[in-house]
Amino acid sequence: MNCIIASTSTVHGSNYLAYLKEALEELYKDVSEIIFIPYARPGGISHDEYTQKAKEGLAFLNKEVKGLHKFEDPAEALQSAQALFTGGGNTFLLVSQLYNQKVLTPLKKAIESGTPYLGTSAGSNICGLTMGTTNDMPIVYPPSFKTLGILEFNLNPHYLDPDPTSTHKGETRETRIKEFHHMNAMPVVGLREGSWLRVKNNDIILEGGLNARIFEKDEEPYEVENGTSLKDLE
Amino acid sequence: MNCIIASTSTVHGSNYLAYLKEALEELYKDVSEIIFIPYARPGGISHDEYTQKAKEGLAFLNKEVKGLHKFEDPAEALQSAQALFTGGGNTFLLVSQLYNQKVLTPLKKAIESGTPYLGTSAGSNICGLTMGTTNDMPIVYPPSFKTLGILEFNLNPHYLDPDPTSTHKGETRETRIKEFHHMNAMPVVGLREGSWLRVKNNDIILEGGLNARIFEKDEEPYEVENGTSLKDLE
Repeated sequence: MNCIIASTSTVHGSNYLAYLKEALEELYKDVSEIIFIPYARPGGISHDEYTQKAKEGLAFLNKEVKGLHKFEDPAEALQSAQALFTGGGNTFLLVSQLYNQKVLTPLKKAIESGTPYLGTSAGSNICGLTMGTTNDMPIVYPPSFKTLGILEFNLNPHYLDPDPTSTHKGETRETRIKEFHHMNAMPVVGLREGSWLRVKNNDIILEGGLNARIFEKDEEPYEVENGTSLKDLE
Repeated sequence: MNCIIASTSTVHGSNYLAYLKEALEELYKDVSEIIFIPYARPGGISHDEYTQKAKEGLAFLNKEVKGLHKFEDPAEALQSAQALFTGGGNTFLLVSQLYNQKVLTPLKKAIESGTPYLGTSAGSNICGLTMGTTNDMPIVYPPSFKTLGILEFNLNPHYLDPDPTSTHKGETRETRIKEFHHMNAMPVVGLREGSWLRVKNNDIILEGGLNARIFEKDEEPYEVENGTSLKDLE
């Protein structure tokens, strides 16, 4: 596999995808065309608008970028794709569309066969075993929470440390993940904004310069440093 | 109906349920026993532990408090209950349990027949048409997102205004609700911590001293003041 699985598309003070520029030049170096999966529709924008945004964000690469929604047979398009990118937005909507368009398995097969893949936010969430650790609102009811399972664990993108000064009584991210582990066994990687997982050469390396926070069932959460391999986490 | 539908069980700097003391004395004045629904299991605590917490929080009332999980026939227990309280926690877990225990309809009937009902957080969320505007993590897959429909709209408990100083790129609550309205038509009431809806005498009044924020599809969100009736919101 050959993937960049990123916490976010955008970091504070920077343009869309800009912080990933060098990593994306390397990921996509051998391809001339990238198929963009716009199903997560951030803020409810249309598939066309979202594809346009991806085109602009990837313009520095000088590659063709096509929206998956434009293909008559999206499963076939994934199978013959040179490279892929799934953007963020709402994970419930993304997963519903992947099921409804019958492309979950073709997408998994394409990634497993080595097609370069970029996921950001919701597009990263779906690389885990389930979408059970998304932060998103359940705006639609998907046929299942099961996702690609490219990774042997789950992801929590946009991972946010508890704010010790907060007076808000809603659950912290850490509390939510603890609740997840009362009902589920797989580890969860809390991926902070600016981090990504580089899946390549049978390894999974934490990149981007930051620590990640690992949650395992019935254990205290712990930090791993930039450069750590997560390939044995399961 | 005779309900208190509260954003949160606890406000900053105060004990569990303490800010609702007077409202609960009035709600439960004619009953000697309250059945507590512990299914949402905040932080993954057990049904027994959670019921104990509810007992302690309601001790000032001097009423019996029994956990619904202790009844052999929970549907029958709801039907014959004098009063009800559903605590907060994880809405996905709560809704799954309501379906699995086949008590969603009996609970709705009990509330509609006038049984005094307190909901906090997840226990309030289920009073809306769907759980589609919960803030919780999808830790289990419920059979449906459809909930009690005691209200003709949806609720967003623990409503949180966007933080203009935040550098975090995850979606704000307002963005999430906007995404919800791309897929759903019903209004959403953003209920701030410290607010509750008093459902009584065929009216629904915002109480607790704060404004609430109302989101309607294809309209700008707007504020309503404490004391406003929401009975015509649909």
